[in-house]
Amino acid sequence: MTITIQHAIDTIIAAVGAAPPPDTVDTIKIGDPTQPLTGIVTTFLATVEVIEQASQLGANLIITHEPIFYNHRDETDWLALAGNPVYAAKRRLIEQQRVVIWRFHDLLHTLQPDPTVAGLLDELEWIACALPEQLHLCRIPPMPLRQLADWVKTRLRIETLRVVGDLDMTCQGVAILPGCPGRGAQIGVLAQPEVDVVITGEISEWETSEYARDATRLGQGKGLLVLGHAASEEPGMRWVTPWLQARLPGVDIRFVPTGKLFHWL
Amino acid sequence: MTITIQHAIDTIIAAVGAAPPPDTVDTIKIGDPTQPLTGIVTTFLATVEVIEQASQLGANLIITHEPIFYNHRDETDWLALAGNPVYAAKRRLIEQQRVVIWRFHDLLHTLQPDPTVAGLLDELEWIACALPEQLHLCRIPPMPLRQLADWVKTRLRIETLRVVGDLDMTCQGVAILPGCPGRGAQIGVLAQPEVDVVITGEISEWETSEYARDATRLGQGKGLLVLGHAASEEPGMRWVTPWLQARLPGVDIRFVPTGKLFHWL
Repeated sequence: MTITIQHAIDTIIAAVGAAPPPDTVDTIKIGDPTQPLTGIVTTFLATVEVIEQASQLGANLIITHEPIFYNHRDETDWLALAGNPVYAAKRRLIEQQRVVIWRFHDLLHTLQPDPTVAGLLDELEWIACALPEQLHLCRIPPMPLRQLADWVKTRLRIETLRVVGDLDMTCQGVAILPGCPGRGAQIGVLAQPEVDVVITGEISEWETSEYARDATRLGQGKGLLVLGHAASEEPGMRWVTPWLQARLPGVDIRFVPTGKLFHWL
Repeated sequence: MTITIQHAIDTIIAAVGAAPPPDTVDTIKIGDPTQPLTGIVTTFLATVEVIEQASQLGANLIITHEPIFYNHRDETDWLALAGNPVYAAKRRLIEQQRVVIWRFHDLLHTLQPDPTVAGLLDELEWIACALPEQLHLCRIPPMPLRQLADWVKTRLRIETLRVVGDLDMTCQGVAILPGCPGRGAQIGVLAQPEVDVVITGEISEWETSEYARDATRLGQGKGLLVLGHAASEEPGMRWVTPWLQARLPGVDIRFVPTGKLFHWL
């Protein structure tokens, strides 16, 4: 049975079962959703390379967690008015490939459990360590911060991560905050007495990392692991792919990773 | 001749000669400015360790470029109301040491040239390469991106930096954007045809780094070097120290670096 892209999106929204915020970013960013659906690619962020791969896989719907035009609301006036050549070429590529890009951000985070937390816990092998009512809080077997960083790097296949704190401090209470939830959440959780370490995606360097540095200098024994935004949320998009598959039986749905972003020199 | 801390701050503000924005962050964050001045420490960010060092140096005025309580406006209600122990201990330390902390951010950036640009150019040995009317734009001897990264690391004594782009691309037009100027500035400058590479302090990972990644994939030959916020602006605070010295003769003024923030594992 052939369904349209719009029908697939509507099916997903209905399956989530929550109302998106009134100014949600979960909109169709580009493309004609009345087309028959040929396949779906899920991804952390629809880069040019992900778009090329979607076409090679025969998919004409990309479900992206993050924006495609370099700002949270995917505003394009600032790029179009400046005649930005990367924006123009990416847009042309998308139009030529007749692909539709839909964002699955706000609604994704309303799912219980939040797939970005569940996916990260799963890949870190910490599901049994998480508090059932507050999945982002884990009680792991005690280990030094250095060993915890090694564990995380190995499980998530991260080339380099940034760590603040005393590498010899013992870590047992670990909080998982994927993405870039901001200083309020990051510092608020790190200040909880039972939390030794926050593992997060992205920080502002005058905020959470300076807090962890001061905490360490003051002998308050707090650590911070900064994974990178993609490394922290790709597990969530991988995790949600079978969830989508179950709601759209017969549709070919594949997760495509964004691959290496930074050279660490 | 003894002057008060307030007099020293007023002298600096008068020497800058520009009006700060109405909601400027360049305020006294803490401490009693009617005290006699014993010495000044300049720094990128008054961490706990910098505050300790200021006291050891006999200085009771710290001039910080970035905030001290983990948010741009140095709001403290969110920390005080939560009984945050790091905030409480840092505050206690500052009060015990009777040090005054004044922020030099908005006014610093009004100086011509902007010390954060001039200081970075100086340490990169690129002053002769910069356009006289637009100091942040440089025309350097052509070199591959990989070699440019090595040059920057060595000159700025950076342990690890993050690079986006083809490491073999030839770089000649280089733009210097210290700090965290945001996607508008970073992407706007990177899109200029004569700019091959932007060197900046800090990015949001769904913005400028994804732009550089797409540009590279689209064959538009753009590179991005992310230095870290401190590495990109400490040269400016080092650069402005003799400028302050000349305006406050007889006052002991020393630049104190914040030191290593991250372990790169």
